Amino acid sequence: MVDSWLPSLLTETPEEGFALATKLARVGVKSTQPDAEVRERLRPQYAEDPNSLIASSQVIAINFQTIAAANAYWRD
Amino acid sequence: MVDSWLPSLLTETPEEGFALATKLARVGVKSTQPDAEVRERLRPQYAEDPNSLIASSQVIAINFQTIAAANAYWRD
Amino acid sequence: MVDSWLPSLLTETPEEGFALATKLARVGVKSTQPDAEVRERLRPQYAEDPNSLIASSQVIAINFQTIAAANAYWRD
Amino acid sequence: MVDSWLPSLLTETPEEGFALATKLARVGVKSTQPDAEVRERLRPQYAEDPNSLIASSQVIAINFQTIAAANAYWRD
Amino acid sequence: MVDSWLPSLLTETPEEGFALATKLARVGVKSTQPDAEVRERLRPQYAEDPNSLIASSQVIAINFQTIAAANAYWRD
Amino acid sequence: MVDSWLPSLLTETPEEGFALATKLARVGVKSTQPDAEVRERLRPQYAEDPNSLIASSQVIAINFQTIAAANAYWRD
Repeated sequence: MVDSWLPSLLTETPEEGFALATKLARVGVKSTQPDAEVRERLRPQYAEDPNSLIASSQVIAINFQTIAAANAYWRD
Repeated sequence: MVDSWLPSLLTETPEEGFALATKLARVGVKSTQPDAEVRERLRPQYAEDPNSLIASSQVIAINFQTIAAANAYWRD
Repeated sequence: MVDSWLPSLLTETPEEGFALATKLARVGVKSTQPDAEVRERLRPQYAEDPNSLIASSQVIAINFQTIAAANAYWRD
Repeated sequence: MVDSWLPSLLTETPEEGFALATKLARVGVKSTQPDAEVRERLRPQYAEDPNSLIASSQVIAINFQTIAAANAYWRD
Repeated sequence: MVDSWLPSLLTETPEEGFALATKLARVGVKSTQPDAEVRERLRPQYAEDPNSLIASSQVIAINFQTIAAANAYWRD
Repeated sequence: MVDSWLPSLLTETPEEGFALATKLARVGVKSTQPDAEVRERLRPQYAEDPNSLIASSQVIAINFQTIAAANAYWRD
C-alpha cells in the first residue's frame, strides 16, 4: 500500500477532503490521457475556457460528494 | 485551522448552506485556474452566456446536495 | 430570518418541493449573474434553445433530489 | 390537492416510477419555457439530435433516482 | 405486470444490473424519440462521436447508481 | 460467473475501486459502440480534447460514487 496514490478516502478536515476531490478529478483525466506532456500542452485550452473551468468544478463537486460521505461530513 | 477556507460543512441556515455551495463551486474553478486576473478576464464570457450560467447553477446544486446532507437538511 | 429567501427545505407537498427546486436553480444562476437586466436580456436565447431547456430541467432535477430527501419523500 | 400534477412520488411499480420521472423532466422544461406552442416548435430540433436525446435521458435518470429512492426501490 | 419492460430493479448479479442500467438509458431516449426508425437513422451520428459516447456512458452510470442501491450493492 | 466482467463491486482498496470505476466508464462506452476498431479510431479525438477528458473524468467520478458506497467507503 506504500505507493498507493489513494490509500484512504478519510481526511482530517473538509479542506483536505476538497483537495482530495480535486486530485480524484485529475486522476480521472490521467486515466484517459496518461501522457503528461499532452495534458500539459492542453492546459492553456481549458484553463482559459470558462465552460471547461465550470465542468472541472463539477467533477470536483461530484468527487467531493463521495469524500464528504466517506468522512461522515466531518461532523464529529 | 485558523486560516482554513472550509473549516466545516455545517451552517446555521439553508440560506448560508446555499452560499457555501456557491463558494465551493468557485473554489473548484480556482483550483483549475488559480490566476485571479485570468478568471476576472473570463467573467464577461460566462456571465452573459446562458449555458454557462445554467452549468454554474448545476455545480452549485451538486455542492448544495453535499452541504444539505451534512446539515441533515436543517430539519431540527 | 424574516427576509431569508430559503428559510427551510421543507414543503407541504411534492409539488411545492418541485417549485422550490426550480427556485434554487434560478438563484444558482443569479449568484453568477446578479444583474436582473442581463438575465432578462438572455432569456430569449435559452428559452428557445432546446439544449438549454433540457439543461435547466437537469438543474431542477438535481435540486429536487435534495428537497425530496429533506422531506423524506413526503412519505408520511 | 385535487388538481396537483404531483400529488405523490409513490407509484405501484418501477415502470410507473420511470414514467413519473419522465414527467418530472418535462415539467422541468415547462417551468423554463411555459409556452406550449414554442415547446412544440422546438421538438423536431431535439427529437432528431442524438445529443439532446442523450441529455433528456440523463434528466430522466436523475429524476428516476429520486422516485426510486422515494419508493424504497419497490423492494417489498 | 406480464408485459412490463421494468418489472423490478433487482438483478441476480452486478453485471445484469449494469445491463439493466443500459436498458434504462435507452428507454429514456425512446421516451423522447419514440420512432425506432429515426433512432436507427441517428445511430451513426452518436456511435462515432466520442462526446456522445461519453455522455451515453454517463447516463448509464447514473442509472447504475439507482440499480446498485436497489440491490444493496449485491453485498450479500 | 466465471466469465463475468463484473463479478462484484467490492474491492480491497480505494485505489482498486477507482480502477473499477474507470472500467465501468469504459464498458458504458462499449455498450453504445461495441466495435473495438471504431473506438480505437476515435481515441485521438477525445484523448486530445480537454472537454472530452473532463467529461470522462466525470463519468468515472459518478461510477466511483457507486463503488465507494458499495464498499462502505473502505472505512473498516
